Amino acid sequence: MALMMPTVDRRTLFGVALALFTLGAAAVPTAAAEPLASWNEGAAKARIVSFVREVSDPRSRSYVAPAERIAVFDNDGCLWSEQPAYFQLAFAMDRVKALAPKHPEWKTTQPFQGVLEGDIKAVAATGERGLMELVMATHAGSTTEEFAASVRQWVKTARHQTLKRPYTELVYQPMLELLAYLRANGFKTYIVSGGGIEFMRVFAEEVYGVPPEQVIGSTIATKYELRDGKPVIVREPKLDFIDDKAGKPLAINKFIGRRPVMAFGNSDGDFEMLEWTTAGTGPRLAAIVHHDDAAREFAYDRDSHIGKLRRGLDEGPQRGWLILSMKDDWKAVYPAPAR
Amino acid sequence: MALMMPTVDRRTLFGVALALFTLGAAAVPTAAAEPLASWNEGAAKARIVSFVREVSDPRSRSYVAPAERIAVFDNDGCLWSEQPAYFQLAFAMDRVKALAPKHPEWKTTQPFQGVLEGDIKAVAATGERGLMELVMATHAGSTTEEFAASVRQWVKTARHQTLKRPYTELVYQPMLELLAYLRANGFKTYIVSGGGIEFMRVFAEEVYGVPPEQVIGSTIATKYELRDGKPVIVREPKLDFIDDKAGKPLAINKFIGRRPVMAFGNSDGDFEMLEWTTAGTGPRLAAIVHHDDAAREFAYDRDSHIGKLRRGLDEGPQRGWLILSMKDDWKAVYPAPAR
Repeated sequence: MALMMPTVDRRTLFGVALALFTLGAAAVPTAAAEPLASWNEGAAKARIVSFVREVSDPRSRSYVAPAERIAVFDNDGCLWSEQPAYFQLAFAMDRVKALAPKHPEWKTTQPFQGVLEGDIKAVAATGERGLMELVMATHAGSTTEEFAASVRQWVKTARHQTLKRPYTELVYQPMLELLAYLRANGFKTYIVSGGGIEFMRVFAEEVYGVPPEQVIGSTIATKYELRDGKPVIVREPKLDFIDDKAGKPLAINKFIGRRPVMAFGNSDGDFEMLEWTTAGTGPRLAAIVHHDDAAREFAYDRDSHIGKLRRGLDEGPQRGWLILSMKDDWKAVYPAPAR
Repeated sequence: MALMMPTVDRRTLFGVALALFTLGAAAVPTAAAEPLASWNEGAAKARIVSFVREVSDPRSRSYVAPAERIAVFDNDGCLWSEQPAYFQLAFAMDRVKALAPKHPEWKTTQPFQGVLEGDIKAVAATGERGLMELVMATHAGSTTEEFAASVRQWVKTARHQTLKRPYTELVYQPMLELLAYLRANGFKTYIVSGGGIEFMRVFAEEVYGVPPEQVIGSTIATKYELRDGKPVIVREPKLDFIDDKAGKPLAINKFIGRRPVMAFGNSDGDFEMLEWTTAGTGPRLAAIVHHDDAAREFAYDRDSHIGKLRRGLDEGPQRGWLILSMKDDWKAVYPAPAR
């Protein structure tokens, strides 16, 4: 399929760009010149590139007007890693440690005790209810601005336990290039994730180039109140919406109000989002990032407790969904470490 | 204040634009040349124009980066009329008539009987509960696509009872120009209305140039299901969120995730939205459309059952909010009728 990729002479392109620039026009975006540099040549890359070319070519029968070019991406396991546990859980546990001096009772109450003592088994034993308590205790009670500040601080200082890098460097270089490539071709890129909407918004613009208004996620209830005459929005310990599974198309409908043209996920939590996307008329492309790269990232699918992928592997191919192999389709996984 | 407005020589501007075009640059947007043509020269127009110039001038101390240039607008009474009743209620009543053959029981049940017999007093007597029943019976039960089709059909055929024009022509020409002017200056324009989100999205893009993803409104619950193997989103008879009063800043925070720089409203239902907007640091502008034009539109404020404006008039001016007089600040109210 490598034949489908045009040979690009960079000097020629530079010459054309320079000429256009001299004439006063906008420079040719370099993303369009060499798209998806960290993707291996192969069927997956070729299919993405040919799809994008067709929908953005006004002469094509598959042309899609720019306003309708919506692409949605899951976050955990699709744009950044999610092992050995969702990164937002690491944030919650770090917050428990930071807030512990104000909560002496946590020393003897699960799941907090387990977090403080590093006893993950004890935390896990509290089940979903315990996890919810962790999230509520660490994500609620503050104003939106205080919460954002705590996430900002954590993103700056926290490191992944085994990979020893900041979490925001554990993003997938090929997906960063894909996001940029789609935007260069008139797409509006959205994140549609089970993660917390206000957690992701803190770093999504800088890390992914996705502005807050294009980040959709799970939400907790909020209330508006005046503190010393100044209005604040307070995060309440009450779940508002879980943006997972069938919740994803519902959130897409609520926040965007258009059906996406492209959808990317990695787990069965994304199944309905991909199903909803590809059920639309006209050209649609859905793809699943398959974690099959134990050497460079992690290998997990059908039986994983996080990012379980079973139905997507069974039904995806017959539905025409692309299964992306991290091992085979990606030249690199993470960006080169900053020096 | 007319002195604050620059005298624009159109021939000179045309010459500059032509020169730039010949050199290959983008043409000068005409909206910037003659902004707000349907606004009378005066303090209100001057303040809006000077605010927009300052926030979009990189050399200004009040400069705001394009990504942060968010402007929010109420819809009913701010972008289109809302008298003698919210237009969406007219849609609901027309839907009752259209659906009546399938609901013989409506002939003898209020508030439906009142709608069918044109007995508005009987409808009003059912109070808020009755109104809610009307909305649920006419807005729920269908798929999102069926609902959008019914709104599209209604928008095409319905006429305002006294003004005898399609509802989508009862939009304010000066506000259409303001929306376009802001967008020409790098603003992202949003609707934040108590109206139904899926009702407004049907016509907002064509009428206001505001795409669905920038329309925020009240929502009812939805569910995802398969019908004959095809996924649909079904509207359920259950309120999800009322986007009014303190709900507006909460919805802005949830949908946009940034604090707006400009906010426009017309009733006390917009008070918190304007308060939230102007409580941010840096340049902010809030304005209230005051319905004081009985001759060309309607005159109502403190005691109106719809669009009540009391607190905004009392506190707005001391908070630095602009009170826009339809009578004095607008040359025209509605666009000239299509021929």
